[in-house]
Amino acid sequence: MAEKKLVEEITSMKEDFAQWYTDVVKKAELMDYSSIKGCMIFKPGGYAIWENIQRLLDARFKETGVENVYLPLFIPESLLQKEKDHVEGFAPEAAWVTYGGNEKLVERLAVRPTSETLFCDLYANIVHSYRDLPKVYNQWCSVVRWEKTTRPFLRSSEFLWQEGHTAHATAEEAEARTIQMLNVYADFCEQELAIPMIKGQKTDKEKFSGAKSTYTVEALMHDGKALQSGTSHNFGDGFAQAFGIQYTDQNNELQYVHQTSWGVSTRLIGAIIMVHGDDSGLVLPPHIAPTQLMIVPIRQEAEGVAEAANGLKEAFAAAGLRTGIDLSDKRPGWKFAEAEMRGIPLRAEIGPKDAAAGNCVLVRRDTREKTVVSIEEAPQKAAELLETIQQDMLSRAKDFLENHISEAKTYEEFVDAVESKPGFIRAMWCGDVACEEKIKEDTTATSRCMPFEQERISETCVCCGRPAKKLVLWGKAY
Amino acid sequence: MAEKKLVEEITSMKEDFAQWYTDVVKKAELMDYSSIKGCMIFKPGGYAIWENIQRLLDARFKETGVENVYLPLFIPESLLQKEKDHVEGFAPEAAWVTYGGNEKLVERLAVRPTSETLFCDLYANIVHSYRDLPKVYNQWCSVVRWEKTTRPFLRSSEFLWQEGHTAHATAEEAEARTIQMLNVYADFCEQELAIPMIKGQKTDKEKFSGAKSTYTVEALMHDGKALQSGTSHNFGDGFAQAFGIQYTDQNNELQYVHQTSWGVSTRLIGAIIMVHGDDSGLVLPPHIAPTQLMIVPIRQEAEGVAEAANGLKEAFAAAGLRTGIDLSDKRPGWKFAEAEMRGIPLRAEIGPKDAAAGNCVLVRRDTREKTVVSIEEAPQKAAELLETIQQDMLSRAKDFLENHISEAKTYEEFVDAVESKPGFIRAMWCGDVACEEKIKEDTTATSRCMPFEQERISETCVCCGRPAKKLVLWGKAY
Repeated sequence: MAEKKLVEEITSMKEDFAQWYTDVVKKAELMDYSSIKGCMIFKPGGYAIWENIQRLLDARFKETGVENVYLPLFIPESLLQKEKDHVEGFAPEAAWVTYGGNEKLVERLAVRPTSETLFCDLYANIVHSYRDLPKVYNQWCSVVRWEKTTRPFLRSSEFLWQEGHTAHATAEEAEARTIQMLNVYADFCEQELAIPMIKGQKTDKEKFSGAKSTYTVEALMHDGKALQSGTSHNFGDGFAQAFGIQYTDQNNELQYVHQTSWGVSTRLIGAIIMVHGDDSGLVLPPHIAPTQLMIVPIRQEAEGVAEAANGLKEAFAAAGLRTGIDLSDKRPGWKFAEAEMRGIPLRAEIGPKDAAAGNCVLVRRDTREKTVVSIEEAPQKAAELLETIQQDMLSRAKDFLENHISEAKTYEEFVDAVESKPGFIRAMWCGDVACEEKIKEDTTATSRCMPFEQERISETCVCCGRPAKKLVLWGKAY
Repeated sequence: MAEKKLVEEITSMKEDFAQWYTDVVKKAELMDYSSIKGCMIFKPGGYAIWENIQRLLDARFKETGVENVYLPLFIPESLLQKEKDHVEGFAPEAAWVTYGGNEKLVERLAVRPTSETLFCDLYANIVHSYRDLPKVYNQWCSVVRWEKTTRPFLRSSEFLWQEGHTAHATAEEAEARTIQMLNVYADFCEQELAIPMIKGQKTDKEKFSGAKSTYTVEALMHDGKALQSGTSHNFGDGFAQAFGIQYTDQNNELQYVHQTSWGVSTRLIGAIIMVHGDDSGLVLPPHIAPTQLMIVPIRQEAEGVAEAANGLKEAFAAAGLRTGIDLSDKRPGWKFAEAEMRGIPLRAEIGPKDAAAGNCVLVRRDTREKTVVSIEEAPQKAAELLETIQQDMLSRAKDFLENHISEAKTYEEFVDAVESKPGFIRAMWCGDVACEEKIKEDTTATSRCMPFEQERISETCVCCGRPAKKLVLWGKAY
């Protein structure tokens, strides 16, 4: 049967998680490879998810006073070099423009890998007095980092993101903004994407090039691997000193500004796939689903069915639900499989008997649970079900996360956990980068973060046995 | 007085229109020059206008079935070269990436100047059957064309735009989509930007590189110069043949698709400035204004004023108006001038006497007309006034356009009109590019379009005297 075959084209998650992921991306028509090495094409299904992420996250930004801007795509090499750590982090993977038309450029230009240097250049020009502060700017754009290996949404030479860049009068204000934006990310992911996040600070080894401190939200994928989902950096006044960003304070004294930056990217779509997806394809949280409800008529040629289905569509749309209707000449089973593969949270089936009885059947994507409702009540019931699905998806993701955190007090326990217990491992650390390196070399696990919720689960470093300083969350990661 | 000086910093329009334009862009804080040659910075005030344009135009696109996608930033040189006319039009002004990290690329990559070739490459891969058609894709992105001279919003090496690219089964469907999108642009500009457009077809000399026909919407700026504000191209099957985009039709025969593309850019912001602005600065149409109404308290330290002002803000916002409040320590006159410079359509003033009487004063940006209203009625009255302003701005722009179209039947009349009558000139044309070139050389005027509303105002070409074929709208242009 055609509809069976359609679903069979998705490799099972247990059989080969990486292939399952690739299959879902392809079959749900989210993304495609392009003929440009390392660059991807966002197809309508994938881009529409990003549009919803942008809309909801941007509204949260603006509530905190963020203003959007757009800065140039290009960074002159000399500008990129102004902050030492930063250039070391990004120059090796930059794409370089050397010709403008037929003329060789005097100075080559990097296609922006991130825009700290451009924002610093701007702030040096427009910040003069304490009255000009704070500046809380953000831009939605694409960035380029020349990658050797690529995976849809997770790693590609060009990707879409937002980057916020702020300048503040005091160190305290900068730190508060850094944490505030991390919390915006964590709340957004939990409430809109139904993905629980662990918040913490990166170790020096894992922090951003040029940052004083980097905070992160880490999510757990279905295969037990971590995905760094968003970061927020406090730069202190390091960039301000390199770029000469100074202001006159209330006492007429010259001060350096304190800066932050923070970003999330289209990686979040990878997280949605790997946290919620199943062997039938994508499962989208209703808040972010481009189509929340798909109407599938059964025997649509029978009297009254197409009319009833179209009537339902209008009623759902009037109730504010993002509604589709599949009136194609495919068989219903095929339409069901297609809607499931695309992750549409709710399906409304209506056939001749339903239409005659004034009913339709609502089917949840996540649990396949069916509910018969009257056509009259359908919009309200569908809206309620969508909210239930959203909450249930979050609950299941939270349970999964909680059930995939283990603890290790000795190195033996640690190595065993990496091998046999997919997920995060909580273990104490002495603070020495050598231990992070040894753990990575021995196990491929890395320090994901020092969680905000600290605890002393043992007195010694899990790796070297010296006195422990911090509880660290470890894991294999994307 | 400080507020006087603030306004005086804007050069008068009559004195020096180009300087007036630059002053408005700078003083209204729309855009700034960057340290990258030819690239601009969109400041919050300018970018917020673009966000509103995107939001309103994108909704109109989606009503016609457009789906958004995102294609790579880079185009391999060999791909750009596949369509002969197209590469000749764009290669000379492309920015070229030659290094990825430290490695020299085997093939250099153009930073997209426009994405026809990328969409063709995609369609060649995903279009197989008539069932796959039409494809009606669009992307919002930035493009790069290496420009020697730059002007904010009007000409820069990088600019923001949308580019729609469609593929259809038949020539008729492609032509219908080309015209449909031109109408979307014209309606959008008229209803949301309050700018009337003249619709027409470009002559062969002025059409897009690789197009079969190009349609345009042309607007008239306050200095009498034309601004090409949006274009829609019918490619026929030229690109399809170059890229091998074929589908199997209902009779199982192989056919080439027929394609279109269409775009508007941040130039539209330039049009808003030059159609509506005055010597006090920007004047924004309410539909597109990031802030529609600014509350300015007078003697805000007096009892009850700040409270009343804040109460007003809540009431306006609750009525769905995009509302700001200026509680800074500047003088009211300065605040008025600042709100005027930024083009905010309506100002609400409230002082101690107003607050005591339960009133506020609404002041229109466009006419300066003042209306005293009760605080209770203020939100509804403000909403009505905003709609009145929008319609009045459109009426004035229409009157201006109608009063700046002249006719020429002889070359003498034509040359005289170009010199003494700012605006469009209607004159007949024989269809020979040589006449377009002579006119341009003699007068700097160019053929803007062959208007859809054709008329025979004389029997002979205004330039050469041979039999006339088309009525053409001529003018000096940006």
